Amino acid sequence: MGIESMLPFWNDLEESQRQLLGRATVEKTYSKGSIIHNGNMDCTGLVLVISGQLRAYMISEEGREITLYRLFKDNVCLLSASCMMSSIQFEITIEAEKDTRAYVISPEVYKGLMNTSIHVANFTSSLMGERFSSVMWLIEQVMWKKMDSRIAAFLLSESSIEGTSELRITHEAIANHLGTHREVVTRMLKYFQEEGMVELRRGTIEITDEEGLEDLTE
Amino acid sequence: MGIESMLPFWNDLEESQRQLLGRATVEKTYSKGSIIHNGNMDCTGLVLVISGQLRAYMISEEGREITLYRLFKDNVCLLSASCMMSSIQFEITIEAEKDTRAYVISPEVYKGLMNTSIHVANFTSSLMGERFSSVMWLIEQVMWKKMDSRIAAFLLSESSIEGTSELRITHEAIANHLGTHREVVTRMLKYFQEEGMVELRRGTIEITDEEGLEDLTE
Repeated sequence: MGIESMLPFWNDLEESQRQLLGRATVEKTYSKGSIIHNGNMDCTGLVLVISGQLRAYMISEEGREITLYRLFKDNVCLLSASCMMSSIQFEITIEAEKDTRAYVISPEVYKGLMNTSIHVANFTSSLMGERFSSVMWLIEQVMWKKMDSRIAAFLLSESSIEGTSELRITHEAIANHLGTHREVVTRMLKYFQEEGMVELRRGTIEITDEEGLEDLTE
Repeated sequence: MGIESMLPFWNDLEESQRQLLGRATVEKTYSKGSIIHNGNMDCTGLVLVISGQLRAYMISEEGREITLYRLFKDNVCLLSASCMMSSIQFEITIEAEKDTRAYVISPEVYKGLMNTSIHVANFTSSLMGERFSSVMWLIEQVMWKKMDSRIAAFLLSESSIEGTSELRITHEAIANHLGTHREVVTRMLKYFQEEGMVELRRGTIEITDEEGLEDLTE
């Protein structure tokens, strides 16, 4: 098992707690695009990302989406186990954005540990604080930032995640990340192209002026 | 002291922990309009509302505001003690919306208890989950709801809090709650008036058709 290095409280557990946790953990693979956790219908458990990439998002009644945060290698997904925390009164969906391998810890066993190990309890608080902080950052963006700045920041973030200036992403997908309409994204990207900041080709967006985009985000 | 009844973990503490907590608690009064906690400049501590009303909000660089949530009698304000949680990476401001009496618990002592009592640790998680849920509700509103629906919901909520259909509140204050501009609120309220849902007078808004407003929120 490799959960030891992913859970900072591992060394603080008693041997019996470690064995319990080990038995309650399974390794899973999720292919790109599959839904790992679907609102309150699921109680998936704690998901520890070994490799790949997850996206947590919210869906409106009309099916519009907005990305709340993403999870990468070594990140721990708490809200896929939100069923075990009665104070969490909201629904999110989590999908594999890339082929993903992960350890999944049973929510019942994790909850039991939260109630017996202070280290697990405080790790959980700290994890919730991190996700809460991501969501507060998102509110700032949505409330005070203009769409040009948000799209520019998204392109730069994608480029940094993928390690390339040539992004394979549709306008529709960008709209779903940012909680807006495809038309808004297309219009803005065309404007970016006129300003020489990107080059649009079928299925790809190439960043040609990173500094220009960075200026927009400020 | 009256903190016993406000802290669900009280009976789970050891006698020495109760005494420590008692000594670390002071009773304070805040007059209406005063700032209790100002972003990361302050480390106020845990605030337990005895009477009155608090408002937690976010301010943009340009000074625009949006209300995140409110706290009433018996509510506990965790984010006024966010300095003790390194995972909380955002700044909020908390003001007294009415004359308020509160117990304030030292953040150092509370943090110490989080690290020694599993009940305090899990109470803290649960409190964070509640505030996180409020903020997720806000994102839903901001992202998917139209301004007419948000203003209608705000008026109904105010009316329920104040126990009256005649609200003494300025258009500017409503704008600051909802993160929008005064002009937007004024325009919408005039439309509500034309539709017979409210009556506007200097300094007051009277709700005359509660059902009409409720229909708008759906």
